[in-house]
Amino acid sequence: MGGKAAGEFIKTSIDLAMANKIDAVVTAPISKPSFTLGGWGKKYPGHTEMYADLTNTKKFTMLLAHRNFRVVHVSVHVSLAEAIRRVKTPRVIETIELAITSCKMFGIEKPHIAVCGLNPHAGDEGKFGYEDVEEILPAVEEMKKRGHNVVGPVPADTVWPKLKSGFYDIVVANYHDQGHIPTKLLGFQYDKEGRCIDVEGVNITIGIPMIRVSVDHGTAYGKAGKGIATPTSLLGALEIATTLANNRKMN
Amino acid sequence: MGGKAAGEFIKTSIDLAMANKIDAVVTAPISKPSFTLGGWGKKYPGHTEMYADLTNTKKFTMLLAHRNFRVVHVSVHVSLAEAIRRVKTPRVIETIELAITSCKMFGIEKPHIAVCGLNPHAGDEGKFGYEDVEEILPAVEEMKKRGHNVVGPVPADTVWPKLKSGFYDIVVANYHDQGHIPTKLLGFQYDKEGRCIDVEGVNITIGIPMIRVSVDHGTAYGKAGKGIATPTSLLGALEIATTLANNRKMN
Repeated sequence: MGGKAAGEFIKTSIDLAMANKIDAVVTAPISKPSFTLGGWGKKYPGHTEMYADLTNTKKFTMLLAHRNFRVVHVSVHVSLAEAIRRVKTPRVIETIELAITSCKMFGIEKPHIAVCGLNPHAGDEGKFGYEDVEEILPAVEEMKKRGHNVVGPVPADTVWPKLKSGFYDIVVANYHDQGHIPTKLLGFQYDKEGRCIDVEGVNITIGIPMIRVSVDHGTAYGKAGKGIATPTSLLGALEIATTLANNRKMN
Repeated sequence: MGGKAAGEFIKTSIDLAMANKIDAVVTAPISKPSFTLGGWGKKYPGHTEMYADLTNTKKFTMLLAHRNFRVVHVSVHVSLAEAIRRVKTPRVIETIELAITSCKMFGIEKPHIAVCGLNPHAGDEGKFGYEDVEEILPAVEEMKKRGHNVVGPVPADTVWPKLKSGFYDIVVANYHDQGHIPTKLLGFQYDKEGRCIDVEGVNITIGIPMIRVSVDHGTAYGKAGKGIATPTSLLGALEIATTLANNRKMN
C-alpha cells in the first residue's frame, strides 16, 4: 500500500470504528518515507499520532504487550536527557492512569502496577539522583490514596523478572529503552548472523476511543519475496484485537 | 563473616593472588552496613573499589556475565543524569578497551563488540539527542581504526536479543540499567508472589591484575535458615573463576 493510501486507510478505519461498524483495527507497519511522500508525514510522525489527532485524543500512550508482559511509558520518542525532565509527578500519575485503562481493556479490574525507578537502584534512597524520591514516589502515593494497587519506584533491573513471573500485571517505564529493552529481549529472536528471525509482541494505542493494535516491527522490505518473513506478530495482533473487542462487548 | 573480617579477607586474598599462591578469588555478597561497622565502608563503597585500590588499579569495571551474555558499563552507580554526562568519547574508548580485556579473559581473541546507543533508536540520526553521533560514534570509529571489530551505536532495544543469539561477544552499555535490565531479566527467576527463587549470572572485576569473580546477588538475610536459598550464582562464579584461571595459565 502506498503512503497516500495508508493515510486514507487510517481515516476510513477511524470512521468505521467510531460508527461501530467494525470492532477493532489491526495495523501493519508503515514506511515512514512513503508516509511522508504520501503527504501525511509532515503532520504526523506515524500511525499513532494520526489515530490520536483524528479522534480528538489528548492523553494517549503506546502499550507494549508480549504474553503477560505489559508496559506503558512516561515518554517515548525524545532524547534520554529530555525523558528525565519529563519524569514529573503529574505526568507519572497520568501514565499510571493509562496503565489502569490498559489493564481494564484486558479484563483486569484491579491491576497490580509497578512504577520503575529512574536512577540505578531507584536512586538508593537519594544517593543517585533525586527524581525517584521527589517525582515518582509522590505519584505512587497519590494513586495509592485513590485506592489503586501501585508500588514503586521499583529498581528497574528487578522489576522485569517480577513482571515476567506474573507478580505484576503491568509496569510503568520512565523512558523508551527502559520498557523496550526487556520487551524486545523477550519478543525478538535473532540468528547467529544477526538476522531477525521472529517477532512476538504487539503495541496497542491506549486512550483513543477505539481498539487499535499494531505489530511491533518495521516494514522489513529486505525480506520481501524471500519467504523468510514470519507473521507471528501480526497473528498476535489479530488475536489480541479479538480479545480486547470481546472484553469491550462484555462491558 | 563480620564486616571487619570481610575486609581482612579481601586484603589476604589480594596478597595470596599477587604472590601467585592462589589462582582466583570468588566473593560472596557483602553486607554494606556490616562492612561500614567493620571500619571499611568509609573508604570503600564495596568489594570492587577495595580490590581496585589495593592493587593500584585506576581503570577498572564490572563485567556482568550470564552464559554468553557479557556486558560492561561506561558508568554504573551514578544518577542517570550524571551517567549521560559521562558518555564522552575517551571514556567510551576506555570501556571498549575493558570489553576487549574481558573477552581475552574468556579466550576470545578477536571479539565482536557492540556499543549501545544512549538515546531511543540510537538518536535516530540526531533527532533524539546528540550523544550517539557526537560521543559514541567517534569512539567506535577510533577503535575500528585500531583494528577492532566494533559496531555502534546500536539501538539499545535491539542489541540484547542479538547478544543473546551469539551474534556479539560482548556489549558496552552506557549506564547501569541499560546493561542490568537485560542481564537480570535473563538471570533472575521470581515466583508469582514476587519472591526471588533463583539467580544465575555473576560479575567479574575487569582491569585488576588478578581474577576476582562475585555472585550477582545480595546477602538475602531473609532467606537464612529457611532452606530456600539457592547456590546457582555461587556455583556459576566458581565455575567461571576456574575457566578464567585455566585460560590465564594457557597464555
